[in-house]
Order: sequence, then C-alpha cells, then structure tokens
Amino acid sequence: MKTNPGRFFEDYKVGDVIRHAVPRTVSGGERALYHALYPARHAIYSSDEFARSCGLPAAPIDDLAAFHVVFGKTVPDISLNAVANLGYAEGRWLKPVFAGDTLRSESEVIGLKQNSNGKSGVVWVRTRGLNQNDEIVMEYVRWVMVRKCDESRPAPETVVPELAPVVAASDLVIPEGLDFTGYDFTLAGEAHRWGDYEIGEKIDHVDGVTIEEAEHMMATRLWQNTAKVHFDATFREDGRRLIYGGHVISMARALSFNGLANAQMIVALNGGAHANPCFAGDTVRVWSEVLDKAETAAPGVGAIRLRLVALRHGAEPFSLRTDDGRYGSEVLLDLDYWALMPL
Amino acid sequence: MKTNPGRFFEDYKVGDVIRHAVPRTVSGGERALYHALYPARHAIYSSDEFARSCGLPAAPIDDLAAFHVVFGKTVPDISLNAVANLGYAEGRWLKPVFAGDTLRSESEVIGLKQNSNGKSGVVWVRTRGLNQNDEIVMEYVRWVMVRKCDESRPAPETVVPELAPVVAASDLVIPEGLDFTGYDFTLAGEAHRWGDYEIGEKIDHVDGVTIEEAEHMMATRLWQNTAKVHFDATFREDGRRLIYGGHVISMARALSFNGLANAQMIVALNGGAHANPCFAGDTVRVWSEVLDKAETAAPGVGAIRLRLVALRHGAEPFSLRTDDGRYGSEVLLDLDYWALMPL
Amino acid sequence: MKTNPGRFFEDYKVGDVIRHAVPRTVSGGERALYHALYPARHAIYSSDEFARSCGLPAAPIDDLAAFHVVFGKTVPDISLNAVANLGYAEGRWLKPVFAGDTLRSESEVIGLKQNSNGKSGVVWVRTRGLNQNDEIVMEYVRWVMVRKCDESRPAPETVVPELAPVVAASDLVIPEGLDFTGYDFTLAGEAHRWGDYEIGEKIDHVDGVTIEEAEHMMATRLWQNTAKVHFDATFREDGRRLIYGGHVISMARALSFNGLANAQMIVALNGGAHANPCFAGDTVRVWSEVLDKAETAAPGVGAIRLRLVALRHGAEPFSLRTDDGRYGSEVLLDLDYWALMPL
Repeated sequence: MKTNPGRFFEDYKVGDVIRHAVPRTVSGGERALYHALYPARHAIYSSDEFARSCGLPAAPIDDLAAFHVVFGKTVPDISLNAVANLGYAEGRWLKPVFAGDTLRSESEVIGLKQNSNGKSGVVWVRTRGLNQNDEIVMEYVRWVMVRKCDESRPAPETVVPELAPVVAASDLVIPEGLDFTGYDFTLAGEAHRWGDYEIGEKIDHVDGVTIEEAEHMMATRLWQNTAKVHFDATFREDGRRLIYGGHVISMARALSFNGLANAQMIVALNGGAHANPCFAGDTVRVWSEVLDKAETAAPGVGAIRLRLVALRHGAEPFSLRTDDGRYGSEVLLDLDYWALMPL
Repeated sequence: MKTNPGRFFEDYKVGDVIRHAVPRTVSGGERALYHALYPARHAIYSSDEFARSCGLPAAPIDDLAAFHVVFGKTVPDISLNAVANLGYAEGRWLKPVFAGDTLRSESEVIGLKQNSNGKSGVVWVRTRGLNQNDEIVMEYVRWVMVRKCDESRPAPETVVPELAPVVAASDLVIPEGLDFTGYDFTLAGEAHRWGDYEIGEKIDHVDGVTIEEAEHMMATRLWQNTAKVHFDATFREDGRRLIYGGHVISMARALSFNGLANAQMIVALNGGAHANPCFAGDTVRVWSEVLDKAETAAPGVGAIRLRLVALRHGAEPFSLRTDDGRYGSEVLLDLDYWALMPL
Repeated sequence: MKTNPGRFFEDYKVGDVIRHAVPRTVSGGERALYHALYPARHAIYSSDEFARSCGLPAAPIDDLAAFHVVFGKTVPDISLNAVANLGYAEGRWLKPVFAGDTLRSESEVIGLKQNSNGKSGVVWVRTRGLNQNDEIVMEYVRWVMVRKCDESRPAPETVVPELAPVVAASDLVIPEGLDFTGYDFTLAGEAHRWGDYEIGEKIDHVDGVTIEEAEHMMATRLWQNTAKVHFDATFREDGRRLIYGGHVISMARALSFNGLANAQMIVALNGGAHANPCFAGDTVRVWSEVLDKAETAAPGVGAIRLRLVALRHGAEPFSLRTDDGRYGSEVLLDLDYWALMPL
C-alpha cells in the first residue's frame, strides 16, 4: 500500500512523538488570502506600521492562521480516522509568526482511553508548531475519538491526562516587545479599552456571513488539511461537505471584531467545542462573553478571557445551551480564549 | 453598546475630518488575488520588468485595488447606514502603491443636504488614501444617501459642494518617472496607440464573465469592506447578496483590456453611477466610448478619457439609456475615467 | 476592430515565432493561491527550508503553476478559435521559477495540416517560457485544431513535425544543485523511495475533490488565460462553463500526493489528453501507473515516469479505455510525465 490509511486507535502509544509532514513557508500571500476568506480587521495583523507602533517588527501572520497551519499538518497522522474532534486545552501562542517563517508540527501522545464498546477510543495529543529556528511558536492539547482497525486488539492501559480547565493568566506569553502605551484607538477601529469591559458582559456582534463551498475549501486547503470530508461531496451519505471546524473559528473571531476590535492578539486557547456541524449556505453570527480579565507585565497590555459563540442564522441572540444542558442545535462553536488588549 | 451602529445623517458636520480605521500593508498577495478575482492583464501591473521598462521602480498594485483598499476603510464610517451610493467625482491617483506600502484613509465632510421627506439626507465626503509616509496616494469625492436615526432632529444647513464635472487634463498627475517612449506593444498585448483612438469611438469588448458569490465576497473582504449587504444572505428580504459596486468596476475595467490593453493606468475618476444592482449569476459584458484625449508632459504618454459601461447579459450591445433618459434595467455601471496610454 | 478576434488556421505559417503578451512577475501570492486552489503538498514547493535541504536556494513556484503561467499567455494567440486541444509532447522544465521571477512566453509554429473538410486544421507550436534573464524555464509542444475564418483560402503545405513519443531520460534537466542525499522522508510525508516503485505498479490515490465554479475561474484567471468558455456561462449552448484542462491537471497531480509524496518535481511532460470535459460539480479522483524508471547524474535523485489518470466520480478504479480502445466517458485526463524522486 503506497497511500496513507491514517492511524487507528491501536496505533498510538502514550509517549510517542509524531513528526508531522510538509513544512510550510508563509508569506504575504497567506496574509492576503486570510483577509480574503475572513472579514479579519484586527489592525496589528493588517498593517506593518500599526504593528511597529505596538513594538513588533512587522505585522505577524494572523494568530489563527498560524494555528491552522500547525493544525493542518497533524490531520494525516491524528484525525484521518477520527469520528469526532472532542476538545482543545492548554493552547498557547508563544511567538508571533512572520512572513518568511517556515512552520512544522509535532505531536506527543499524552493520553489513551478505549471506549467501552471496543470499537474506538480517545487519543490525547499535545501538538507543537515550530519555526525554522526550532522555536515553539504555539502548542495545544487536542483530543479526538479514533476508530480501531482491528477490534480484537487489546485495549491499551488507560491514561487520561490532567488538563488545566483554563490557561492561568500568569502562564500567558506576551510577544517580545509588545507595548500598547502608544496604541492608536482610532486606527484600531474602536475606543473601548480593557477597562471598559466587565466580567460577565455579553456582546452581540451583529454581523453575519453566509458561507460558500469554494471559500471553506480554499481555506482548508491553504492549511494543507487533507480530511476527505471537507472536499469530497460524495464522501458523506447526505452529499454535504462538512466545513472544517477551524474555518468556523476564524469566521467567528473575525466577526467578533465589531465590539472587540481591540482584542488584538489571541494568546491562549482554553477550550473549545464544535457543537454542531456547519455546512455551506449557513449564515454565521457570533456573540461573546467576558469571562475574566488579568493584568500583564507588558506596558499598556491587559489580558481578557472571552467566550466566543458562533450560531447558525435563526438562533436567538446569546443562545447556547438548552434546558437539558446540551448545546442548542443552532450552536456551531463555543470557544474559550485569552486575548491581549490595550489598558 | 460596544458594536458600531454606523453614523446617521445627523452625525455628520461639514468640515469634520474622519480618520478611518484599520490601516493595511499590501504585498504580492494582494496582487495575486487581484489577478485571480478579475481577468486583469494590463502589463504594467502584471510585470515588474515591464513596469521598469516604463520608468517605474516595479509593478504597482493595480490602480483599482488601491482604490478599493482606500474605499473599504471608509465604509464603517460613511456608508454603513447608506441607502444608496449616489456618485463619484474629482477622483485622482496621485502616487502608485507598491508592495510593502501601508495605506490608511481619511474623509472630510464637504456637503450635507437633508431630503425633503426628513428621513434621510445626502452626505458628500472627500476621501484621501495616504501611505506610510503620509503622502496622498489617491483622493476622490463620493456622495451617499444616509438615513437619519432620529427624524425629529433639525436639518443641518444645506451645503452642496461645487464639483468639477470632469477632472481637467491639466490636473492629471503622471506617476514620477513614467516614460512610454520604449513601450513594447507586443508584450502589452495590442498594437493600438493613443493616436489610433478617436473621440466618439465605441468599443464592444466582447468577453463576458459570470459572477459567483464566493468571488465577490472574497474581493470585498480583501478590501475590508464590512457592509452586511454583501455577505449576509439573510439581510435583504429577497435573500440575495448585493455585489459591492467596486467589484463590478474592477470586473468591467479588466474586461475592457480586450480593445484597450494600452490604457495602462487609471489616473482620474471623473464620475460613475451604479445604475442597477448586480447579483451572483449575472454575466457581465462591457463597452467603452472615447470621450476625450489630451497630451501630457511625460515622454510618450497620452491621456484618454473613457466611458466604461457594464451590462448584464441579454442587453443590446452599446445600450445605456432608455428613451426617457434613464439607465436601462440591464445597465450595471456607467463610469467615466482618464487613463494613460502610449502615444 | 480594436478587439482581438484570435488567429484562424490560415493565419499561421510554419517557422513563425509569436511573442505572447502580458509578462508576469510571480510572488508568494501565487504560491499561496496555488495551495488554496489545489491540495498541493509536495514539500519542496511548500517549504523554503525543505527546498534548501535539497540543494535549492528556496522553494520554487510549483512546477505546474509555472506551466500554467507560460501556457496562459499563449491562449489569445493560439487557442482562442481552437475547436480542440489535441495533445502535448516534448515538454521539459529547464529551470525552477522563484518568487520575483518574471515570465513571458513565445511559440514557434512547427506544423500545419488542414483537415479534409476544409473547415479547420491542426496547428503545432513549440512554446517556450522565458524568465527576466531570457533563460528558458520550460518548453513544450502543443497541437490544437483551429477553425478557418475564410474556408476558400488554399490549404498550406502540410508539415507534421516528428515528435518524440516520450522525453528520453537522458534529456531530462535536473535543477542545478538538486541533491536528495539528505532527504527527510518524514517531513516529505511518505517513506517510499524510488527503489520502492516497480514498473507496471498502479496506485489508487483514494482522495477526491468536488470542483466549484469560483475555484476553477480564479485559477484560470490567475494564469491570465482568457478563453471565454471558462468564464461565460452564456457562451456554450448548455449554459455550462468548461473547466480549463490545466485545472484538472493540477488537481490530479495534487491528489496523487497520497502515494506519490516523494515524486517531488515534474521535469518532463511526455504527453497528455483531456479525454472528456470537466464541469463544476464533478468529483475528481485519480490513479497513477509507473511507466518507467531511470537514474540521473544528480546525487540521490532518481527519475520516475508516471501515467496520471483523472476520473469523474462513479468510474471504476483504474478505468481508462473501453473495449473499442476509446477513453471511457468518465475519464477526464490521461497524462504522461517524468518526476524526480529520492533514491
């Protein structure tokens, strides 16, 4: 067999480190495409001049674009036979990625738990994205349910990693040199600073985008994510292509600009759930909730912890869970992250 | 309220200068996307070598791409609550934009006139795009009809700016160093030079393009234009996304290559009307009319004033107005501009 | 007439050299778009670091992207009035194309044969792509059937060029400096080396992609290919846009990564047939057959000759010809090429 059948549950061992294939050099091309695919407007990623006024050497590639590049490489090794993407934790952006940088990924298997039906199991991996200098630019834990190939194979010893429910504010890594003391709120697009947001505050971001097949496929290919389900309309019985969850994350984050224009840089991913599948034709709307706030050591820079919820059109504003505690059927995404904002 | 509700008619005052948000650094990525979204082939924007043979340091970003970047930034402040985009005047390109340049925009309110129904009014703004050295790269006047939020607010004093019906040839700014004396007509794609065009001459550009949702949305997002009506299929009652008028302008200009390949650079926008809305599925065709010609001080460089008309498929060639003087229902665009052409 | 009516059969003369219009400078933008439009993952084109580990100065633009840029320029002069694209031969990539390079094309007419019906004829051209230093980066022979404009014009003397059925292994040009002795198979994505492939071996590449209108139009425009049939839904009687054959070639090559990840660089195009038209909505799958193998003088570098067949969804795996020797109705492409692979 020359083609890659993907790994099955019994192919993972705790402690294995998988070096993922196909390193990627990013350029202004990736930046332009990111802005063509999402209504992204955070100024630090749009303008070299604005980024320099904030102490960075140039505008980095969007934080989520870096995430997608790192994530995409893991798909052929981690989620080709995945039944479900179950969660994220302990995600941190450690270094901005600039045009000219080359990224690769590796994942360590940190947990395994066979399901009681013996047909599948949960695999936890800690994935790291590295640049051409072998510096870790980001890391996160992801867990997925993966099918077994041979159900007669014995279950591995169960190892469930202890994961932080949220990245502690003291563990956030602020990009070197970041300084918001000279921040230009007019150029950034909104006047609201860190002090203007209150824990518990909810924001309806108002705008909506109707998603097209060509767009989500172009995005998903750009990140070199190879999962058939996103590209092949004959793969699922209903003839619909499932949209890569990361496309919904980026769309939601970009739509949250209107009300959170100054939540400039994502620095941690505390958790996230793709509550329901998203398909072309869906119109996505989003709302946010301020979950926490923290100070940082960087001049003028505060941290804000946000819940970001994406809804399919037709949902009530601010809807999330039904009375039984489950996600409503119109909820696409429930994401929990830390961002940096001027004080 | 954290989100931007947009400005209403009563929020504008003559003399106000609005600095628009989200500066943008452009790169080869914007250029490649422009060529993927439109059938653009003017050689000076396609080839660094050709641009250098014309005295420029490199191929600039397409003139209309620069316009869209500048224009897009104005939308959240000028046209979020616009009922209609009424016109353009006194547009001039003052400096080519190159990869690496960072653009921002500002607009001065130069006119206000409340409508007799008291529900809306016309706002005139003069918008300038500036680069990282605070040089004005382009400017234009635009007027839009904007809703009032509170109809009981008194009408402002009416100020209707005097606008030139056409930019005088003597006011055209030729890019520094431009020299068409060594112009390679074969590489440019056509043999027709400035002297070959006659005032009154009409050209049917023959080619047509059928427009897709994914394309116009990617284009409009790339220019960071945030108007809901272009992206959200649930926003209008008929469930159709209105295509950004600038998308039609760029499509029309690119289609005019076939017959006007040597009208290399647009240097002035005398006026323009989006005569009817354009929707995905429309097949766009275009025709041009030579309105005027002028010499310039630059070596080998002539100026040609052109009308560019975009039609929806099914329209008669060269159709424009019906007997009552109104635009025909198949007319999408009527644009009046000056371009530079080798003598 | 200012617009280009295209050339008709009687307009070609053996020995004519046509310099094609609109040179193009490529950048990281073209690379990013190529990866957004196709599931391309060959590491040497994705990562500057990987390319450098193979002896190149940086990651070149994808071999087929270079082909498309060169090919696109020929369309207005060669195939605007073509009835059919009949074949390719003697294609060779002679120099990698890097970001910043400017490409132009020229074609020499090397054969003419009027059809017996007197209404059309076959034109053979040898096309060369040149960079800004006038170095030939690639060349190929293509022949097309072209309509006559005036059927009363006498037939030209018939000249049918002798074309090699396959580029000899000894004529393959290996990029300067290429060295696969330090090749990283893990980063490349597969362990199979040149020695692991046997002549006659067939590979079903498993993956499939459903094609969208917006994608093939963006690709075709990016290569500045102007053939109406790809863009104008009103042009053909059935209202369908015909997908540029080169879009199918690139999609097929990218899909063959799964099983041929180490067939890094295409260096020769021996032949190819667009067996049936491809339309939006088609789901493309591919299979390959190893036709030949050869050693090269470059360190660690072997050559592999491959047949690449693209099928429309629903076709049997490995299907190609029916009992009467014709291509099956589900066959989209039958391509024969040489690629370089680590020993």
